[in-house]
Amino acid sequence: MINITATVDRLREILDGESNVQLKEELNGFHSADLADIFQELKPEERLECFNLIEEDKAADMIEYLPPNLQVEILGDIDNELASRIIQKLPHDAAADVLGDMEDDDTEAYLESLPQKFSEEVRELMNYDEDTAGGMMTPLFMMVTPEMTAKEVLDYIRDRADEDNIDLYYVYVTDKQEHLLGVVSLKALLRSSLKTKTEDLMNSDIVKLHIDDYRDAVLDVFMKYQFDSLPVVDQYNHLRGVVTWDDIQDAAEEETTEEIYASSAIATGSIDEDEILEGSIFTSIRARTPWLFVTLIGELIAVNVANCYGKTLQALPVIAIFMPLLAGLAGNIGTQSITIIVRGLSTGQVTLGSALKHMLRESAIGFLIGAIFGGLVMLFTWGWQNSIELGIIVGLAMAINMSLATLIGTLTPFAMEKMNIDPAVASGPVIATAIDVLGLAVYFSLASVYLIKIVN
Amino acid sequence: MINITATVDRLREILDGESNVQLKEELNGFHSADLADIFQELKPEERLECFNLIEEDKAADMIEYLPPNLQVEILGDIDNELASRIIQKLPHDAAADVLGDMEDDDTEAYLESLPQKFSEEVRELMNYDEDTAGGMMTPLFMMVTPEMTAKEVLDYIRDRADEDNIDLYYVYVTDKQEHLLGVVSLKALLRSSLKTKTEDLMNSDIVKLHIDDYRDAVLDVFMKYQFDSLPVVDQYNHLRGVVTWDDIQDAAEEETTEEIYASSAIATGSIDEDEILEGSIFTSIRARTPWLFVTLIGELIAVNVANCYGKTLQALPVIAIFMPLLAGLAGNIGTQSITIIVRGLSTGQVTLGSALKHMLRESAIGFLIGAIFGGLVMLFTWGWQNSIELGIIVGLAMAINMSLATLIGTLTPFAMEKMNIDPAVASGPVIATAIDVLGLAVYFSLASVYLIKIVN
Repeated sequence: MINITATVDRLREILDGESNVQLKEELNGFHSADLADIFQELKPEERLECFNLIEEDKAADMIEYLPPNLQVEILGDIDNELASRIIQKLPHDAAADVLGDMEDDDTEAYLESLPQKFSEEVRELMNYDEDTAGGMMTPLFMMVTPEMTAKEVLDYIRDRADEDNIDLYYVYVTDKQEHLLGVVSLKALLRSSLKTKTEDLMNSDIVKLHIDDYRDAVLDVFMKYQFDSLPVVDQYNHLRGVVTWDDIQDAAEEETTEEIYASSAIATGSIDEDEILEGSIFTSIRARTPWLFVTLIGELIAVNVANCYGKTLQALPVIAIFMPLLAGLAGNIGTQSITIIVRGLSTGQVTLGSALKHMLRESAIGFLIGAIFGGLVMLFTWGWQNSIELGIIVGLAMAINMSLATLIGTLTPFAMEKMNIDPAVASGPVIATAIDVLGLAVYFSLASVYLIKIVN
Repeated sequence: MINITATVDRLREILDGESNVQLKEELNGFHSADLADIFQELKPEERLECFNLIEEDKAADMIEYLPPNLQVEILGDIDNELASRIIQKLPHDAAADVLGDMEDDDTEAYLESLPQKFSEEVRELMNYDEDTAGGMMTPLFMMVTPEMTAKEVLDYIRDRADEDNIDLYYVYVTDKQEHLLGVVSLKALLRSSLKTKTEDLMNSDIVKLHIDDYRDAVLDVFMKYQFDSLPVVDQYNHLRGVVTWDDIQDAAEEETTEEIYASSAIATGSIDEDEILEGSIFTSIRARTPWLFVTLIGELIAVNVANCYGKTLQALPVIAIFMPLLAGLAGNIGTQSITIIVRGLSTGQVTLGSALKHMLRESAIGFLIGAIFGGLVMLFTWGWQNSIELGIIVGLAMAINMSLATLIGTLTPFAMEKMNIDPAVASGPVIATAIDVLGLAVYFSLASVYLIKIVN
């Protein structure tokens, strides 16, 4: 892959030199995906200057690789007729997404400037939520009837090969009313004798998407069956479009971001990930405060637990200074456990059936690591505070808290899965709070019962 | 998608009834991906019984969808000749992976039982690390010379369409020494006149993988350019194989797991994710302790900071009980910030160029959320402890700590990116430790300077 920063620097030099011929040649030499990366680093006026030098096919191709805000910016800055021509070159689903992201007036103006058929098809896609199969599909696909022969279908494929953005590798078989009956691959057609009827070649046991299926369901089907493309039907089994694997790449990236955000106590339920990263500050605050409130309530309980042992603290203030050590390490190992189990449940490598095995395994790990760290902390405390009793109490509390933390971190996602709550919302930071409460209770109980006796 | 649990229950009933005819019919009716899900829920003896009833093509297809340990278990349990026939039906890369996961003796025995050509090709793949382009590619592809006409290439494609697992949609153009010159798509061939020479149809400006490229680099290229498949060349530009998009789906899932593990302070550098989840307990401990040690050292510093204020604690033990509250919330919001920035750097939505913007944005968010939570905590403390001074100190410390936490959480990944260290290793839990140290210093300083005056 090319070095984007170095390339941008070189292009800027040419831009300054004002040799449009050289710039044009350079720009058109890049792959569209590289051009998109370069454009993201340019300033708006540089973008405009460069964009007008790129061939229209390549420009349309590049637009597809750009993030939504830049798509809208560039199409808004360039000549309207050029913009209209470029939108026509986009796949239908990409055109619908770009037009949907523009101001309403602009959307209408562009739709009216487009050829009627294209404009109608795009309008239909715009009716579907961007995050459903309907919003992800393209209405461009090949449709044949079951009586056609392999030769007829191959001729039909050749006829349509000229269309941009059409997937030639699967032909969908429907009845006269466009009900989906099956799918036949170009490979099967090439393998067969030319006289074979399509109905004898087609696979009628097909996996299909429903037009209202949500993005994560679409993604699950693609990931599970590893198809290149899937047909989309409405409630009457009418074939309405096709989703191809490249359409789901962006969806996959967004789902991963949601999973990672959820693991850090950022609520993504009704808020778009892009909004959290770059939208209004108040949207970000709305996504970040819910779990912080839960943490607040949890920690206020922890404060109350500590307060119950006010007398112990008064008698022996030194025990207070070990609180962050205990909470930090137990929270950390508990976060590891919950992350491993939640991710395993998400990929399917961990199931409720294997819950007991994982609970035993994590507990053993927690116990062993707890013993190691408990021992280290005991030695440190003993040496530093010159009190073997304090060392034993702090070390023992550490070992117990770390073991407890792995158990809670493992148990919680399984319990949520059992209750049909998405375990991904059980994030490390929230578990760490629960561990704080329990851990303080363990530590102060140990300290109150054993240490105070010694002091008195 | 089917309900796996219900299906497994139904199959078990048929298994008990011992009606093999019905069971056979049921099993062969499933999609191979569903069968693989079902098999994961069955007991080993049930698996063996069911496997022998599945048609060989479907069985081979299902094996591909199974996790490595089950692939090896099933192939080891069934009849050797059947196993050998099934391995031959796998794509070369899958066969190499399965054979590589077996005991060395078994691998040799199977390799010798396979047809010589297949066995040699698989042996070659086994020489490459499973996590490189060489280990992910298949040596099965179509190769033509630039002088051939579109008609000749189309006839050649039709000739090879009978081969299992071959990708017919891209034909690779090489010279006589098999140096890669370009690629021509079936689509371009279908669009062109039959007499056109391949050299006039081929795209010679191609993106290719090197045989030693690591999995994450392969994944980056696929994600960036969104290709269906990519050619793999050696250092002499000899075409050696092809990686297709379904080969990278598993790689993508593993990369995501690595990213999520890293965000929870689990070290994945030299340790396989599957090992952490299901391997030996000691491997897991090795992956989990490095960052716990870093946390330990950090928290020991925090303990020392708290110890410096021993006199303050002695004079006013109540201030100790607010430590977990301050640490918990600041750690939580700091984790959110670092997660958002690290993920943004990983997807490319955040760059060093936009670092200042994000730092200002996160600081504003931290300041506002800090003000809200600081206010709440102040009111709570004032009401509960009946001391407005204590309320102000705790609330102010909360506001400062939460603001500081977002700043550290945002600054750290940018600083690491600048120093060319992978920011993914800067996980939330480790940042939380740094925030503990700073936060305690802020809190105790405030308390020492202002509160102690009042008490005395």
